[in-house]
Amino acid sequence: MPELEAIPDQDCVQLLRSHQVGRIALLDAERHPLIFPVNYFFDEGVVVFRTDPGTKLDLAPGAHVSFEIDGWEPERGAGWSVVVNGICHDITAPDDARSRRMHYWPVEPVAPGAKEHWIGIWANHISGRRFGPPAI
Amino acid sequence: MPELEAIPDQDCVQLLRSHQVGRIALLDAERHPLIFPVNYFFDEGVVVFRTDPGTKLDLAPGAHVSFEIDGWEPERGAGWSVVVNGICHDITAPDDARSRRMHYWPVEPVAPGAKEHWIGIWANHISGRRFGPPAI
Repeated sequence: MPELEAIPDQDCVQLLRSHQVGRIALLDAERHPLIFPVNYFFDEGVVVFRTDPGTKLDLAPGAHVSFEIDGWEPERGAGWSVVVNGICHDITAPDDARSRRMHYWPVEPVAPGAKEHWIGIWANHISGRRFGPPAI
Repeated sequence: MPELEAIPDQDCVQLLRSHQVGRIALLDAERHPLIFPVNYFFDEGVVVFRTDPGTKLDLAPGAHVSFEIDGWEPERGAGWSVVVNGICHDITAPDDARSRRMHYWPVEPVAPGAKEHWIGIWANHISGRRFGPPAI
């Protein structure tokens, strides 16, 4: 039986840096969770994504959210996930040098839409779990 | 520019039936969202997954949750996601024929652990979105 093990912090960061699609969970007006997939870029402890006007832009700024990436290889009996919990900030009109710098990050949505609004998830907590044989 | 389009209900159901890994979002004790990946099986409007004692089992029963699956092909400029919103019920000790039947569904977690607790998400709302050229 494979063991479920914690992924060391530096490996969580490496996984976040090397992937492009994740899912964000936030609360709707009724305080029920909603999940959305997003293209993102991670650096400096911040998950940045872009969005158009709509539900995500209405709900995310100032909210506690959860963000997740994962990978599965059922044939190898292996899998992993990394979860980032943090607070969203609208950085569309950045008021500090760090947020301004994030606009140069390669956040490239593949979904259609101008996606001119930029949101950053400032990580409070990052954790990862994996199981199965090490990747070859 | 590709268009984002709604996935017809019957196609959402087909996608839910033909995948095995999704993510569930629920609220922690502080009412902040948390995401977990799960192996699942979908039928009859219910997403069923199995779990061990722990956070999911503590938080899920009776809760409004969001469940998501997706697929991405950046090289084709294509992607899709299906989201199920609904309420969780613990069906570990089923008290009706329908829930009892779900214990025969092929819910096969690849993660380690006995996962002897069964949870069903009764869908209130299923929606899907996709973009990009049709799959070949």
